[in-house]
Amino acid sequence: MKPIYFFEEGSGTNRQLLGGKGAGLCEMTQMGLPVPPGFVITTEACRQYYASDRKVPASLLEHVKNSISKLEKKTGKTWGSRNNPLLVSVRSGAAISMPGMMDTILNLGLNDESVDGLAISSGNRHFAWDSYRRLIQLFAKVVFGIDGQLFEDAIEAAKRANKVTLDSELGDSTLKQLVGTFKEIFAKQTKREFPTNASEQLELAITAVFDSWMGERAVIYREKNGITPDIADGTAINVVTMVFGNRGGNSATGVVFTRNPGTGLKHMFGEYLVNAQGEDIVAGARTPKQISVMRKEMPKMYAKLEATCKQLESNFKEPQDIEFTIDDGNFYLLQTRNAKMNAAAMVKTSIDMVSEGLIGREDAIRRIDAHNLEQLLHRTIDSSATRSATKVTTGIGASPGAAHGVAVFDVARATSMGESGTSVILIRDETRPEDVPAFFASAGILTSRGGKTSHAAVVARGMGKPCIVGASNLKIHADSRTATSESVKIREGDMLTLDGNTGIVYADQLKTNAPKMTRDFKTILGWARAIKKTGVRANADTPDAARLAREFGAEGIGLCRTERMFNESDRIGLFVDMIMAKTTEKRKEILAKLETLQRNDFTKILRAMEGRPVTIRLLDPPLHEFLPNRAEFSERLAKLAKIKATKKLEQEKEVQRRALELAEVNPMMGHRGVRVGITFPEIYEMQIRAVFEAAISLSKKKVRAMPQIMVPQVGSVAEFMFMRNIYDRIREEMSKKHKSNISIAFGTMIEVVRAALVSDKLAKAAEFFSFGTNDLTQATFSFSREDVESKFLPEYMAKDLIETNPFQSIDVSGVGALMQISTKAARAAKSNIEVGICGEHGGDPSSIAFCHKIGINYVSASPHRIPIAIVAGAQAALGPAKPRTSKKKRGA
Amino acid sequence: MKPIYFFEEGSGTNRQLLGGKGAGLCEMTQMGLPVPPGFVITTEACRQYYASDRKVPASLLEHVKNSISKLEKKTGKTWGSRNNPLLVSVRSGAAISMPGMMDTILNLGLNDESVDGLAISSGNRHFAWDSYRRLIQLFAKVVFGIDGQLFEDAIEAAKRANKVTLDSELGDSTLKQLVGTFKEIFAKQTKREFPTNASEQLELAITAVFDSWMGERAVIYREKNGITPDIADGTAINVVTMVFGNRGGNSATGVVFTRNPGTGLKHMFGEYLVNAQGEDIVAGARTPKQISVMRKEMPKMYAKLEATCKQLESNFKEPQDIEFTIDDGNFYLLQTRNAKMNAAAMVKTSIDMVSEGLIGREDAIRRIDAHNLEQLLHRTIDSSATRSATKVTTGIGASPGAAHGVAVFDVARATSMGESGTSVILIRDETRPEDVPAFFASAGILTSRGGKTSHAAVVARGMGKPCIVGASNLKIHADSRTATSESVKIREGDMLTLDGNTGIVYADQLKTNAPKMTRDFKTILGWARAIKKTGVRANADTPDAARLAREFGAEGIGLCRTERMFNESDRIGLFVDMIMAKTTEKRKEILAKLETLQRNDFTKILRAMEGRPVTIRLLDPPLHEFLPNRAEFSERLAKLAKIKATKKLEQEKEVQRRALELAEVNPMMGHRGVRVGITFPEIYEMQIRAVFEAAISLSKKKVRAMPQIMVPQVGSVAEFMFMRNIYDRIREEMSKKHKSNISIAFGTMIEVVRAALVSDKLAKAAEFFSFGTNDLTQATFSFSREDVESKFLPEYMAKDLIETNPFQSIDVSGVGALMQISTKAARAAKSNIEVGICGEHGGDPSSIAFCHKIGINYVSASPHRIPIAIVAGAQAALGPAKPRTSKKKRGA
Repeated sequence: MKPIYFFEEGSGTNRQLLGGKGAGLCEMTQMGLPVPPGFVITTEACRQYYASDRKVPASLLEHVKNSISKLEKKTGKTWGSRNNPLLVSVRSGAAISMPGMMDTILNLGLNDESVDGLAISSGNRHFAWDSYRRLIQLFAKVVFGIDGQLFEDAIEAAKRANKVTLDSELGDSTLKQLVGTFKEIFAKQTKREFPTNASEQLELAITAVFDSWMGERAVIYREKNGITPDIADGTAINVVTMVFGNRGGNSATGVVFTRNPGTGLKHMFGEYLVNAQGEDIVAGARTPKQISVMRKEMPKMYAKLEATCKQLESNFKEPQDIEFTIDDGNFYLLQTRNAKMNAAAMVKTSIDMVSEGLIGREDAIRRIDAHNLEQLLHRTIDSSATRSATKVTTGIGASPGAAHGVAVFDVARATSMGESGTSVILIRDETRPEDVPAFFASAGILTSRGGKTSHAAVVARGMGKPCIVGASNLKIHADSRTATSESVKIREGDMLTLDGNTGIVYADQLKTNAPKMTRDFKTILGWARAIKKTGVRANADTPDAARLAREFGAEGIGLCRTERMFNESDRIGLFVDMIMAKTTEKRKEILAKLETLQRNDFTKILRAMEGRPVTIRLLDPPLHEFLPNRAEFSERLAKLAKIKATKKLEQEKEVQRRALELAEVNPMMGHRGVRVGITFPEIYEMQIRAVFEAAISLSKKKVRAMPQIMVPQVGSVAEFMFMRNIYDRIREEMSKKHKSNISIAFGTMIEVVRAALVSDKLAKAAEFFSFGTNDLTQATFSFSREDVESKFLPEYMAKDLIETNPFQSIDVSGVGALMQISTKAARAAKSNIEVGICGEHGGDPSSIAFCHKIGINYVSASPHRIPIAIVAGAQAALGPAKPRTSKKKRGA
Repeated sequence: MKPIYFFEEGSGTNRQLLGGKGAGLCEMTQMGLPVPPGFVITTEACRQYYASDRKVPASLLEHVKNSISKLEKKTGKTWGSRNNPLLVSVRSGAAISMPGMMDTILNLGLNDESVDGLAISSGNRHFAWDSYRRLIQLFAKVVFGIDGQLFEDAIEAAKRANKVTLDSELGDSTLKQLVGTFKEIFAKQTKREFPTNASEQLELAITAVFDSWMGERAVIYREKNGITPDIADGTAINVVTMVFGNRGGNSATGVVFTRNPGTGLKHMFGEYLVNAQGEDIVAGARTPKQISVMRKEMPKMYAKLEATCKQLESNFKEPQDIEFTIDDGNFYLLQTRNAKMNAAAMVKTSIDMVSEGLIGREDAIRRIDAHNLEQLLHRTIDSSATRSATKVTTGIGASPGAAHGVAVFDVARATSMGESGTSVILIRDETRPEDVPAFFASAGILTSRGGKTSHAAVVARGMGKPCIVGASNLKIHADSRTATSESVKIREGDMLTLDGNTGIVYADQLKTNAPKMTRDFKTILGWARAIKKTGVRANADTPDAARLAREFGAEGIGLCRTERMFNESDRIGLFVDMIMAKTTEKRKEILAKLETLQRNDFTKILRAMEGRPVTIRLLDPPLHEFLPNRAEFSERLAKLAKIKATKKLEQEKEVQRRALELAEVNPMMGHRGVRVGITFPEIYEMQIRAVFEAAISLSKKKVRAMPQIMVPQVGSVAEFMFMRNIYDRIREEMSKKHKSNISIAFGTMIEVVRAALVSDKLAKAAEFFSFGTNDLTQATFSFSREDVESKFLPEYMAKDLIETNPFQSIDVSGVGALMQISTKAARAAKSNIEVGICGEHGGDPSSIAFCHKIGINYVSASPHRIPIAIVAGAQAALGPAKPRTSKKKRGA
């Protein structure tokens, strides 16, 4: 085991061993870039430290000693001596950067002797003593955890005594006195003297860095973020020869992105300060200058910086985020890492780097964080606006995008105000199908209950409207048209802004930015489409959604929910009548009317998706979902009871009785989907006939309609065959009636666990499968999403009992195993069976990768996630990039 | 294909080809018993008939013709002739008997000529003409479906004209006239002459039998009962030479069981009639005599019958149910089949037949219908009592046994009346944990809502109390202490009798019979225990239940539910306080009190099961189940609101708020089991500690306590490990505190689908698995049992969409597949892991057979089903008997 690598030795790709920072320093050194000499103590050494019960092994100290000697030779300086002293900085650096790790200590190696040496070699006593007092201050704070205020107070006292206002105005001798005072504070607080031996300083610093790896903040962060030892195991330590940006007017320090991380434009983006150290840029006491100013102020250095950026990009094939220091006219690089950037910049830089020949199209696709692409399709709150904004409350961001509008607490009012042009935010405890017209009229929806699959969430997502649900701290008083959060009271008419991405509700109207479907974005999608193997369809229930999906690149509709169509104001009444019908005849009569409406719906959506498949799902929810809410009804009844009984009251009571009859203990697992289709076959018959009629009438108009019909909640072959027989009969009737031989595929959802387990037999009877991963996940975990997301799931995530929310990313070991069992059995029974997925996972990159892996034919996602699905599909098809090669394999 | 077998040719074991009746006739003939000559037209011929579009193939007619010729030779009679005419009966007979099949036609072959021949050969003109008019009447009714009343009216008219009152008083010439009238009726109704050609009669009869196979009633019966073609495919036809029990005082007809089917006692049991035909016994115009009377009345024939019974039993190794006819002193057997008997008789005859050397112990076990054994452990309603009883309503029989008592509609009253010695039937819409004390005090429980896993059902079953749930036609008005069913109004205090087996509620007190755990029954159980491989444990929560289970043969407790213990009146209050606790400290304080109580509970049950394992399940239900029902609470609140606010009201409101906070949309898939254990670890800690303390204190008293601790609702390894860490810590603490090294196995339920899918990893961490097949079935089907059993499951069963109720018998393709996946993975990871099942399927014979097949170590069932489990376990271990051998392989 080699515990230490000099920068010229370590492999620039071995972040696991050298940490991210260390690997970067090695790479840059080996590229010939000006990095101050230094070395990395490996993560292996860190693990060794813990294996030795938190003792730095003697062998490591020996290695450190030898490495310092080597550094002395390289630099011509001497460790801890008056004679041109060697000073170093010590920085932690794990494979993944995380909070809670030890801050950098500068100027290590200074003591009562070498401070003089520094004064001599720099010709600047003030600088030398200021560096020394900084060391003591930092060392006390970082290594021993002493309250920094004690030192600040001492400085203040010195300034008062000397009647100056700025630190820099303190004279050499005052600084010297301050060093004395600092040492006293140190001794008092730590019950020991400040270590003036340079090697002792270094050993203490090393111990502190290693210890910070197991500090509470770092441990919790790793647990929360699933950073397991295979990702990062221990921290490395970077020991770097000090260079000084604060040595006068020919010195400076700065941070720079090689390209603009907000726009992706190809120009350096950053700040610098003349005569300053790194921390001064962040501290804010002096305002840094834009990097572009440097071109005039320090033209030579600017040119050097520009050349360096180019060299770095050409090496790392990624825009970089770097730290540099100019020490008396000498340019040094202190850090480089891949620049974090927003989705727009990611897209722009991908396109640019391809045209510059820096990377190929495949890598251009690979480097994009598909998740973030959704940003580009929704309005976003301008980041500048959030800082000073008042937060009203926080819920679950259930449908992304930003929206502002006036608070309205009832559906009728929201509809009328919205339709008359006011931007409205609808606020409810929860929503129900009959509220859907108000969704159309509102700019955004906010509820105090429910999770990401609550009615509000699903409907809003389908419409692409910003929505926040489960804001449980918001107490809504619909009667008085107010709501109260932790601190704020909202009245009807108050202006609010919703951030559907973060779930934050702001007071007032914040500045928002419009979405951009740029030419670059379209180019990237084009490349991705050419690469991906998995089909991408949309979950869309309306012609508008279908058109939007098509614009974003959908190759069809994978899930068209028919129940939504019943919620529009012209038909919800009819639907309720249908449920209330006392005889099959009465029900059929009403269904005939609904059939006309459904045929129109289907005609419109099939036309909008002409030439592409449209998978129509038969009615899924339990019937009682269409009846008024029981609790609301009881309240109303209580009020009505005071007045004389009327015929209307009697009617309402009857509806309520029926609702009670249909009510279920666990509606998620109750009388719904195909089970309703079996007990009331006339409903499914009506829907199937409507699809045929729509498709046939379109085909007679030479419009290429491609519907597929899908049965939800199937758990057994017998259930599917029951529906299949009805379908076969209707197809026969249609073919006779219209002399048409239109073929409409008939398939099943796989969302009941049992369906996955009997897929061999189901596949023989069905033309296609579509995984309903929302329900499948609920059933596999026995998690009711509405309950768990608001109750214990957050605690599970916090306690690391679950890695990722299984409703966002497919749970590979459980749900994924079922999908594999099912797909394998289905393909064995019918090799060409079409298998898709239409749960919300269809828009999640890691789920898409899994689907690609097990050979799913297509994913279906909400329109705004289509671009994500396309890029993620391409990434899955590409697989990971070949690792960047480095001359150094592991080290020497 | 040989379409016809004479009785001396056909194989007695080939019921598929020859039908049950035909095979029996062949077997008896070949045993040398006196069966009238005859032949069987095979089920193959029936299938051929359908394959030929319902035409009797000419080849078959040819075969029939030849067979009749053969019969003429055998009997010396002539077909359709004056000269000693050959007459036959025609009977249908499939492999399985079913309703809707054609009735027997007697006297076929009679016509205007042969009737004279019969008169001559019998020397009885009256008999001959009476036989002829019977043929026409039966033929018209059975083959052509003509209303029988037309013929009855003609007979009545003849009797009036002749001024007689009995059919038998009609003279020869009147009967001859009647034959003429009957022919006219026949011709008028059918638009054709009555066929006087014997072969034409036979052909028409054959067609009618074949047609009846596809008759509506038969088809529906087969669909409902899952009789698929591999079980029975087509019907055979038996053509038998007529013999006559109505030829005078030396003739008779009768039906006899070789042993008493009600008691199993070894004596002939049946009835006979002198000078009568078979149908007269059933018709009820004359009262048949007990078969014992025959010993004096016809001693020779009685001896012949007795010898025949013995010979049949020794051949079939089963008590038989036979039909015989004595024709002028000649004894004939017309049918034999295995006797149907009740559980007591089944047990008694098994024991007797073994001691008689007729069968071995293995076959004695095999022949028992394990399902029925439960009859022997519960009171049953005397069958004589139900006939005249008034049915109040019918619900779901959720816990077997019979109980009577006075109707009581509230819990407090039921408790006080029950405790003061009145037999009480508790009637509620549904029950909740706080009602449990009333269960103890009641003789039976009746609810209008819920299914077989509703609270009432599960609790009652655990206590062995008769219970009927989901009696949805019963409208309960708790306020006025009445309930109304379809027809009856029940008032508090009305006497009712519940039949927990059938779900029927009767008015008044019906006679019931006490259970019998006879010596014979114990002997059978002893034999079964020696044979079975699968262990049998009990689901028991109380020391009483444990003792009962032990008495019935349980080898341990496979499921001890700890939540039940919180429902007793001395602790439910504490438990509610615990839920209401605002801080962890307060909660811990209350838990400390509960811990003392739990330790006592555990001590008692472990002591009752000394030396045998007791698997204790940690708290399973969601916390809100312990709080008052929301709807009830609202009502109460509404009443209370009228009076002045009190502190009590405020407290109740707070409880209600908490209940609302904890309420769930789908409680079945919500915050329960291990999920509660994770969010409130102090609850599980308390329970684990209580188990350790109880076991250690017992072991110090030299009582061999063998607890196991089981975690419910586990879906992931992380969840289990979270609890395992707590368990390990407590074990450590206990071992230090008590210097005890007691080992308590720590395992997991497998009731969440995901757990079954990650069993390889779970098995590494758990010492045992126990399948919770109730929940696993719900999750696999996405069926909420409470909802589906009362809503669509009956319709599913009726429409043949599901073969058996998956909550009663394990669904092999779905749930069974998961169990196999899980068991296989678990054993691969840890070969000696103990795998049990503690769902209600543990008491179901076919589920036990499946468990045996996949190598489950034990099943756990409610105490009253332990004997079923033992016998079913033995049957599974034995496998099917070797088929009875027959000299004739297939036919000739």
